[in-house]
Amino acid sequence: MDGSRKRHGDTTNQFLSAGLVIRQKEPKNLEAPFDQIVSYLTPSQLFYIRSHFPIPALDRASYQLRIDGAVRQPFALSYDELRSMPSESRVATLECAGNSRVFLVPQVQGAQWELGAVSNAEWTGVPLRALLERAGLAEDACEIVLEGADRGIPKEEPMPPGPISYAWSVPRAKAVQPEVLIAYQMNGRDLPQDHGFPVRAIVPGHYGMASVKWLTSIHAVREPFRGYWNTSDYAYWAWMDGKPVRSALGEMQIKSEIARPRVYETLAPNQIYRVCGAAWAGETDVTQIAVSTDGGRTWTAAEFLDPVRRHAWRRWRFDWLTPKEPGQYTLLARATDADGVIQPDAHDQNYGTYVINHLLPIEVFVGDPGGPQP
Amino acid sequence: MDGSRKRHGDTTNQFLSAGLVIRQKEPKNLEAPFDQIVSYLTPSQLFYIRSHFPIPALDRASYQLRIDGAVRQPFALSYDELRSMPSESRVATLECAGNSRVFLVPQVQGAQWELGAVSNAEWTGVPLRALLERAGLAEDACEIVLEGADRGIPKEEPMPPGPISYAWSVPRAKAVQPEVLIAYQMNGRDLPQDHGFPVRAIVPGHYGMASVKWLTSIHAVREPFRGYWNTSDYAYWAWMDGKPVRSALGEMQIKSEIARPRVYETLAPNQIYRVCGAAWAGETDVTQIAVSTDGGRTWTAAEFLDPVRRHAWRRWRFDWLTPKEPGQYTLLARATDADGVIQPDAHDQNYGTYVINHLLPIEVFVGDPGGPQP
Repeated sequence: MDGSRKRHGDTTNQFLSAGLVIRQKEPKNLEAPFDQIVSYLTPSQLFYIRSHFPIPALDRASYQLRIDGAVRQPFALSYDELRSMPSESRVATLECAGNSRVFLVPQVQGAQWELGAVSNAEWTGVPLRALLERAGLAEDACEIVLEGADRGIPKEEPMPPGPISYAWSVPRAKAVQPEVLIAYQMNGRDLPQDHGFPVRAIVPGHYGMASVKWLTSIHAVREPFRGYWNTSDYAYWAWMDGKPVRSALGEMQIKSEIARPRVYETLAPNQIYRVCGAAWAGETDVTQIAVSTDGGRTWTAAEFLDPVRRHAWRRWRFDWLTPKEPGQYTLLARATDADGVIQPDAHDQNYGTYVINHLLPIEVFVGDPGGPQP
Repeated sequence: MDGSRKRHGDTTNQFLSAGLVIRQKEPKNLEAPFDQIVSYLTPSQLFYIRSHFPIPALDRASYQLRIDGAVRQPFALSYDELRSMPSESRVATLECAGNSRVFLVPQVQGAQWELGAVSNAEWTGVPLRALLERAGLAEDACEIVLEGADRGIPKEEPMPPGPISYAWSVPRAKAVQPEVLIAYQMNGRDLPQDHGFPVRAIVPGHYGMASVKWLTSIHAVREPFRGYWNTSDYAYWAWMDGKPVRSALGEMQIKSEIARPRVYETLAPNQIYRVCGAAWAGETDVTQIAVSTDGGRTWTAAEFLDPVRRHAWRRWRFDWLTPKEPGQYTLLARATDADGVIQPDAHDQNYGTYVINHLLPIEVFVGDPGGPQP
C-alpha cells in the first residue's frame, strides 16, 4: 500500500519473506506464494503449510520416537539419540495431493489450493531403513505406519468414532529406499514447528500426506493398514479385475506449473516476457518442458534452469515475445518424463479431488491496461 | 522463479499488473493481491472480481437499459443515449460482504476471501436519480430493484425453481442520493467485461452486492423486494421488537486491513518496518486509525496517507521498530469513525458468513529466518 516498501532480494532486509496465502485459518493451511519463489530451495518461511489438526507443541527433551510392530526388537529413541545417528541430507519436492484444486470446475470440497501447495527443500535426518534395520524388520511386514502427534476428529465422512492421530502407511518397498528420511532439519536448520518439529518423515516422490509431521511412531504391519486417511480421505479409485477399488495415493504424478505470469496478470505488448515455473515427477525424472501461449494449439520447448535430480523439481523459463494485439491469452506448460509420459490434458476423475496434474490454464491479458472488453 | 523478473513499478513495463488470486475459478471469483496495492485507486486489472454466474457478453450496439415499475413514464435507453447524458465521476470503495471470510474460525461455507475482496476505483456515469426523475418515480415507491444480465441457478438453499437473473434492491432513500451512479467507466476507461461492461450500478457506501454489474433493468417497486439475494443469501439477522428478522445487508461497516506485512511474513529484528493498509466505512468517515503489534494489548496511532473522502478508503501507515527478540508477533489495525464507532473485537454472529469487520490478526515472525520453534 506504500511505494516505499521493500521486497525480497532488495538490498535492505526490512522483510525476509513475503508471507503466505491463507486457504484455511484453523487448522492451519497456508499456501506458498508460488509466483514469488525465485530460488531452487524454497525458504522455510515460504514453504506451504498443510495441517489436519491444530499444530502440536512438542519439545526436544521429552520427545520419543517408537519403532515397533512387526519387528524383532522394538525400541524407542530420544531426540538426542536420533541426532547422534549417521544422517543424510536430500533435496525433495513436497506437493500436497490437493494442490491446484481450485482449477477443478465445477468446484469441489476441500481447501482451494491454487499453485502454491508445492515447495522444495533440503531435508536432513536419519534414513528410515537404518531404524528398520536396527529394529529387525520382519520379513513379512508389508507396510510401515507413520503416526504423528497431531490429533483430532476429521470433519469429513466417514467420521471416526473419536479423536485419532494423523497416520499414514508407506509400502515396505518404498520405506526401505535410501531417500526416505526421519528428518529433523529443513534447509540446514531445525524443523520449524509448522513443519513437524522436532521430527518428521520425508518420503520423496510421494504426495505430501506420506511425509508425516510431528512423527512419534513407526509401526510395521503385516497387513495393509486401513486407517482413515489411507482408505478414505487420500484414496482414489483404481481398477482391479475390471472393478474399481479404493487405493491409497502414493507417487506424485508428473506436473508443471507456471509461476509467472500469474493468473490475470497484464503484460506489455510486443515485449519479451520471461515465463517461468517448475516441473516435477515422482519416481522418475522430468526431461522435457514445453510452453504454449495460445491455449495449447502450438508448443515451444522451454529451458531448464536446474539439472535432473531425482525427487526434486526443476525450474524452467521461456522468453515470450508478447503479441502486438491486445487481448486475452492462455498459457500452458507441459512436462514430459524420462519414460515419455506427459501431463494429461484433463483431470483424471478417478482421482476425485486429488492429483490435479493436468495442464493448468493461466489466463493473462496483453496490452490493454484497462482490461479486456468485448 | 527467476531473479530477472520485473515488478510493478520497475522502470520497464514488462508486466503491468501482478495478477489475482483465484478463490473460485467458475463462476469467476478472484481476489486482489491486497499486499501489492500501492496506489489510492486500485488499477482496474487488480480490482477484485466477484461473480455469481458466468460473465455475460453484452455489446454496446444492442444494449438497452429499461427503467420501469412504479414510475409515471417508463422508458428504455440505448448505450449511446446513456453516454450522452450529463455524467459524474466519483471515487468509491467496493467491498464484498464476504471479504475476510477465511478469518472466521471454524471455517464457514463460501469463497474463502482473505483481505483482497475490497478495492477502490473512480467510477463515471449518470446519477441514478437523474434517470428516476426522468421516469417520474412514484411517491410511494420504496425500493429500486437493479437487475443484471448474469443469470443461473444459485447453488445454495433455498434454491429457486429455475434460473434467475442477479438482482438487488436498494432502498429509495439511498437510491436517490447523488453518489449512486449508473456507471460505464472505471478509472477513466470503459468498464472491463469482468466489471460489468457495458453498464453497472455503483452504490457507494454499501457492500458490493448492491453495485449490480451488467445492469439491464431498473425497476421501482411499492413493496420491499423479496428476491433470492435480498432475503436469503445476502441477508442477516436483525432484531425487531425482540424478534430476529431477516434483513438485507446494506451499509458497509467500519473496517481496516493491514496490507503489509502479510500473514506469516518474516521481518528483520530491530529495524523500522513500514506497516501499511487501508480503512473504510459506509455512510460516515474514518477519522482514526491505530495499530497494535502485541495482539491488542497496546495501541499506537497510525498516520493517514489520504484525506477524508466519503465512500472512499483511506490508506495509512505506521513505522514499526521491530523487536530485538525473535518470535511470533500479532499485528492488528483498528479504525474509528467520525461518530466514535470502532471496529469490534469479534465477529458479530448475527451477520453469519458476512460483514467480517472485526480486528483481523496478522501473525508475523521477527528475526529467525528458520521460522518459529518452541
